[in-house]
Amino acid sequence: MTNRPENMTGWRARWYEIIFEADTPKGKLFDVVLLIAILGSLLAIVLESVESIYNKYGTIFQMVEWIFTVIFTLEYILRVAVVRNPRYYIFSFYGIIDLLSILPTYLAIVLSGAHYFMAIRSIRLIRVFRILKMVRFLGEANMLSNALKASRIKITVFIVVVMCAVFIMGTVMYLVEGRENGFTSIPVSIYWCIVTLTTVGYGDIAPQTTLGQMIASVIMILGYGIIAVPTGIVTSEIARANQTKADENKKLHHHRCPACNKGIIDPEANFCPNCGNQL
Amino acid sequence: MTNRPENMTGWRARWYEIIFEADTPKGKLFDVVLLIAILGSLLAIVLESVESIYNKYGTIFQMVEWIFTVIFTLEYILRVAVVRNPRYYIFSFYGIIDLLSILPTYLAIVLSGAHYFMAIRSIRLIRVFRILKMVRFLGEANMLSNALKASRIKITVFIVVVMCAVFIMGTVMYLVEGRENGFTSIPVSIYWCIVTLTTVGYGDIAPQTTLGQMIASVIMILGYGIIAVPTGIVTSEIARANQTKADENKKLHHHRCPACNKGIIDPEANFCPNCGNQL
Amino acid sequence: MTNRPENMTGWRARWYEIIFEADTPKGKLFDVVLLIAILGSLLAIVLESVESIYNKYGTIFQMVEWIFTVIFTLEYILRVAVVRNPRYYIFSFYGIIDLLSILPTYLAIVLSGAHYFMAIRSIRLIRVFRILKMVRFLGEANMLSNALKASRIKITVFIVVVMCAVFIMGTVMYLVEGRENGFTSIPVSIYWCIVTLTTVGYGDIAPQTTLGQMIASVIMILGYGIIAVPTGIVTSEIARANQTKADENKKLHHHRCPACNKGIIDPEANFCPNCGNQL
Amino acid sequence: MTNRPENMTGWRARWYEIIFEADTPKGKLFDVVLLIAILGSLLAIVLESVESIYNKYGTIFQMVEWIFTVIFTLEYILRVAVVRNPRYYIFSFYGIIDLLSILPTYLAIVLSGAHYFMAIRSIRLIRVFRILKMVRFLGEANMLSNALKASRIKITVFIVVVMCAVFIMGTVMYLVEGRENGFTSIPVSIYWCIVTLTTVGYGDIAPQTTLGQMIASVIMILGYGIIAVPTGIVTSEIARANQTKADENKKLHHHRCPACNKGIIDPEANFCPNCGNQL
Repeated sequence: MTNRPENMTGWRARWYEIIFEADTPKGKLFDVVLLIAILGSLLAIVLESVESIYNKYGTIFQMVEWIFTVIFTLEYILRVAVVRNPRYYIFSFYGIIDLLSILPTYLAIVLSGAHYFMAIRSIRLIRVFRILKMVRFLGEANMLSNALKASRIKITVFIVVVMCAVFIMGTVMYLVEGRENGFTSIPVSIYWCIVTLTTVGYGDIAPQTTLGQMIASVIMILGYGIIAVPTGIVTSEIARANQTKADENKKLHHHRCPACNKGIIDPEANFCPNCGNQL
Repeated sequence: MTNRPENMTGWRARWYEIIFEADTPKGKLFDVVLLIAILGSLLAIVLESVESIYNKYGTIFQMVEWIFTVIFTLEYILRVAVVRNPRYYIFSFYGIIDLLSILPTYLAIVLSGAHYFMAIRSIRLIRVFRILKMVRFLGEANMLSNALKASRIKITVFIVVVMCAVFIMGTVMYLVEGRENGFTSIPVSIYWCIVTLTTVGYGDIAPQTTLGQMIASVIMILGYGIIAVPTGIVTSEIARANQTKADENKKLHHHRCPACNKGIIDPEANFCPNCGNQL
Repeated sequence: MTNRPENMTGWRARWYEIIFEADTPKGKLFDVVLLIAILGSLLAIVLESVESIYNKYGTIFQMVEWIFTVIFTLEYILRVAVVRNPRYYIFSFYGIIDLLSILPTYLAIVLSGAHYFMAIRSIRLIRVFRILKMVRFLGEANMLSNALKASRIKITVFIVVVMCAVFIMGTVMYLVEGRENGFTSIPVSIYWCIVTLTTVGYGDIAPQTTLGQMIASVIMILGYGIIAVPTGIVTSEIARANQTKADENKKLHHHRCPACNKGIIDPEANFCPNCGNQL
Repeated sequence: MTNRPENMTGWRARWYEIIFEADTPKGKLFDVVLLIAILGSLLAIVLESVESIYNKYGTIFQMVEWIFTVIFTLEYILRVAVVRNPRYYIFSFYGIIDLLSILPTYLAIVLSGAHYFMAIRSIRLIRVFRILKMVRFLGEANMLSNALKASRIKITVFIVVVMCAVFIMGTVMYLVEGRENGFTSIPVSIYWCIVTLTTVGYGDIAPQTTLGQMIASVIMILGYGIIAVPTGIVTSEIARANQTKADENKKLHHHRCPACNKGIIDPEANFCPNCGNQL
């Protein structure tokens, strides 16, 4: 993972420390400044997309965008200059993200269709995670992602079953309701089925015939039982993770035999069950 | 279950192995080819139902459909020819599914109304499960379905109670809102009630009167408590299944006293707590 | 509970047995016939409310309704005649329900507004529960209702907190969105808030201003956390009930000391921990 | 917390007791009267906001409002007069709430825009909590709020992750659907994403393109898994709180050996398992 040149000296070593290390004061400052720049640039992208705001402050947004782009470009050049193996960085995941974060602004001068183009810059958000990862303040997040990982297979099986159910019910609804009631094709029907089963229920498409409404009712009530499944899976995994953590804490806190150093499970034992030493 | 002719020879034995066995290389290849054919045929059915695509590539779809139908027909004939008791196969669940998967294409030549007719072919999806069952890769699915089976009675009771509640509330809303506000009949009112209680909320029918909105609010908040019940049932079943599995793993892994064969719970015991035999 | 006349003879004793007892063959038959009559009558009420069906088969529905009403009237008269204390029955919960089940049909001759009137007959559904209660096949339902009862206080506290939150947020949305965006009054705003927080989301009222949409987003994400609370309460209660039941089963199945009859918790104990008798 | 003047005499001491203490009969009466006044005033505010009711009974509402305002003003003056350190009270949280509860009515005479102004009075609801807190009947609420507090960090992490996902998906949908399909800007797109992910689904904005509907389907199914996470967190916390409480109850109820004071787990033991003392 570490890409640090071993016998690096002078400004390259200094900048490497600032950019890649989060524990030194300068490294921390760099991270914070970069985080603010990214979030500020994201805010600008979001506000720019609102027509009324853009019409009013369009020039300011262009200026702000160029300032951020120049900052990110300098950062990108510094990263390339400082790492031992520039090619490795450039084609790494974050290297490509860094490049894609600045390219659209430059390309927008040459190419038209800037509107769609500019939104691509929002992948800058992904760069936030690199900084957060560095300062590793995501302790609790690990437990959650572990619980989700542990239930990975179960959730996949569940989603496959749901997809099959949705396919069959979508086709049935397409037959029952037909094109004249908004179920214009099987894909649209399947989309409606997902909207219904997940209890989102936009209402842009809704069954009109009595039979269609009856089938929809069955789907909804089935969806009731079905929504319970992923919740059940994740809940029992989190409970298990909590239990494991509690057990580990207990293990760490319970006393050990001073003679043989074996952990003693019974908190009120008088003799070590391993070597018979009186406690 | 096995339908294999005992003293079968020649091409029938060879084909039986290919079609019905999943462990041999040829059997595996057959399963994979069939799986691809089914999924491809389903994709064709789905895309065909989209009007704009059908208008453009209608002829190609007809061709593709005939290719798949011929493949499935050959497969059907082979299955009938190869099994010991063809009648048993023909009237079995999958035998009927296999037939229904190919019939619509042939009938569409004779009969009109092809549009509705063709969608019936989507029962081909069910044939996917036979293949998946054969290769039995659904290990984790068993646990989920067991958890759901174990909570079968509770969920039935729950659904009966919900149905009664929905019936009463549907009638009340029909009286309160009346036909002029979209609650045109008691069945429609019940349908609205299910849509509300399951938190789907299409919005095609929505209470307009103040009293109706008050009752709807009560229904929604009740629905809040009610949605918790199936989740609770399934969650505790999954937690129980996890527990049982963990217990079984523990049982399988803990050692037994070689002298008295008693299971030893403490994994680090030096002496059998039953007979004192040193382990 | 039992209302049986002690020294009842002749036809009254016979009919009492038929009507009030569920264990005798005749009692069972009576229950089943009554159950069918109630459900059939409910089906008629539901179908009758559909305008197109009523316009077609109106006369048949009136006939069917009169048949059911006569049956229920006879049953009511029989019940009054047979019980020891008729006044007690007439003013009991089910006595009033029984009367309200037949009255509307008679009153509809005299009074107009039959349409609304007739729907009141759907309280006949409640009579179903008396029959179900008698045959007491609702074993599993008890556990569910116990779990809900045990979490009664927690759920009440939860609903009070939700009501307060909904009141404050409803008022805020009324101020932010105003009458022109569909939030015509504070009650309507509160109704919208409940619709949003319970994730029903009809869409008949939806925030239009940017600030309103931001507040709505916060409400929805809060609703996410909030929906977890009743689920968590009910789930942990059901898990507890399952645990208690499992513990009881364990207690019932574990062996007892043959000398002192004390239950022995340790399944592999060699001596009774109570009296020292060797097992 | 207690703000009681130590050497207070005469009417100030009497009124202090009435206003600030909940255990004396007069204190209780004061709390109940105040609670009714607050709730009545809130009801008036709610009903007043309904246009048709206001047009009919406007004068009555103004009268009622002035009565409540005079009551609350007298209460405010009393509180200021009675506490030892009036400045401390006036700038305390509840002091400001008390003032804001009465100010709007007075200001409405001078200023226009009364409509929006009046709704601010609904912060009177917050005053209810002071009374409820005093009579401390919120025992069960503590457990719930503790369970939520314990899962604070996990839920924050969860919401941050959801916000990032919502930002990325919102931008993608803005690009895919575009302004012509209702996704007029990135903020609106993000709003739509939150509406979808939380399964509220108003339907005021809904994807129209096939690609948009496909992405929306993925978002909904992801939302399925995602909604399970807070539920899982809260459920396992509540289960843990229940467990802790049960353990404490067990600890409180099981007896201790009178000789060595060791807690005895087996409720039916005849001899202390630690020192052999007969119980």
